Amino acid sequence: MAASSSSSSFSKPPCAACKFLRRRCLSGCIFAPYFPPEEPTKFVNVHKIFGASNVSKLLNEIPAHQREDAVNSLTYEAEARLKDPVYGCVGAITILQRQVFTLQRELDATNADIMRFASGTGAPRGSGSGYDDPNSTDYWTGKGQDGGI
Amino acid sequence: MAASSSSSSFSKPPCAACKFLRRRCLSGCIFAPYFPPEEPTKFVNVHKIFGASNVSKLLNEIPAHQREDAVNSLTYEAEARLKDPVYGCVGAITILQRQVFTLQRELDATNADIMRFASGTGAPRGSGSGYDDPNSTDYWTGKGQDGGI
Repeated sequence: MAASSSSSSFSKPPCAACKFLRRRCLSGCIFAPYFPPEEPTKFVNVHKIFGASNVSKLLNEIPAHQREDAVNSLTYEAEARLKDPVYGCVGAITILQRQVFTLQRELDATNADIMRFASGTGAPRGSGSGYDDPNSTDYWTGKGQDGGI
Repeated sequence: MAASSSSSSFSKPPCAACKFLRRRCLSGCIFAPYFPPEEPTKFVNVHKIFGASNVSKLLNEIPAHQREDAVNSLTYEAEARLKDPVYGCVGAITILQRQVFTLQRELDATNADIMRFASGTGAPRGSGSGYDDPNSTDYWTGKGQDGGI
């Protein structure tokens, strides 16, 4: 009995969140399943951008089976914001949006080439075919282009 | 003199951040230029996801001419997280990444069609042309596909 009551030194180590916040990592800790002690930076980054309290609230509002995905997306956003404090992961959205625009324009032009081949008027592609005004308005401002997602 | 010293009722209203945080909006308030009183929701959303203290720290670390862009991207991220607590704006990244993959595959197949037309072997496109394994690993997990952004 004495051995079991003094066995705290044999209990598992606190999760990265509780260790960072210098608090006891109790059974049922909302952070523990997603912030293991071996990955301290993951929590530090998420805490720095969102704050431990906000992350805790968010996780408590999400069904347990979706919490890992939520932590992964928060981690991704936090890392992106630390790398790029101005645009964060919205920078990636802007770049991807431009890629979609460029690829769609190229695909339309290539399809037009095929139509010309098929109709026997296989003239070289006109440089002005497709969209003439890329006007790649930033996805996240919602101006101009329809975000649609 | 008496009139000017009691003229606080004629001063401009506090910014949305200071009003929400119930504090005096002093000259040089870091939030004031980006969170006008007419848009109270903008600050409420950003505060709910990132916390006023984190936003203030972030803005203070960014050159003044980039702060508006930073607030816009934070606002976008906050709104996306409120709409989709699990994936936030990373959901948009995943969708855009899949669009890029699909468009690239379609463009490659269409270019192959053109090559067939040009070489006089204009056979119909094989259904299995292009990439057979979309393996659209989520952009933000960094697994499989090279994020590259």
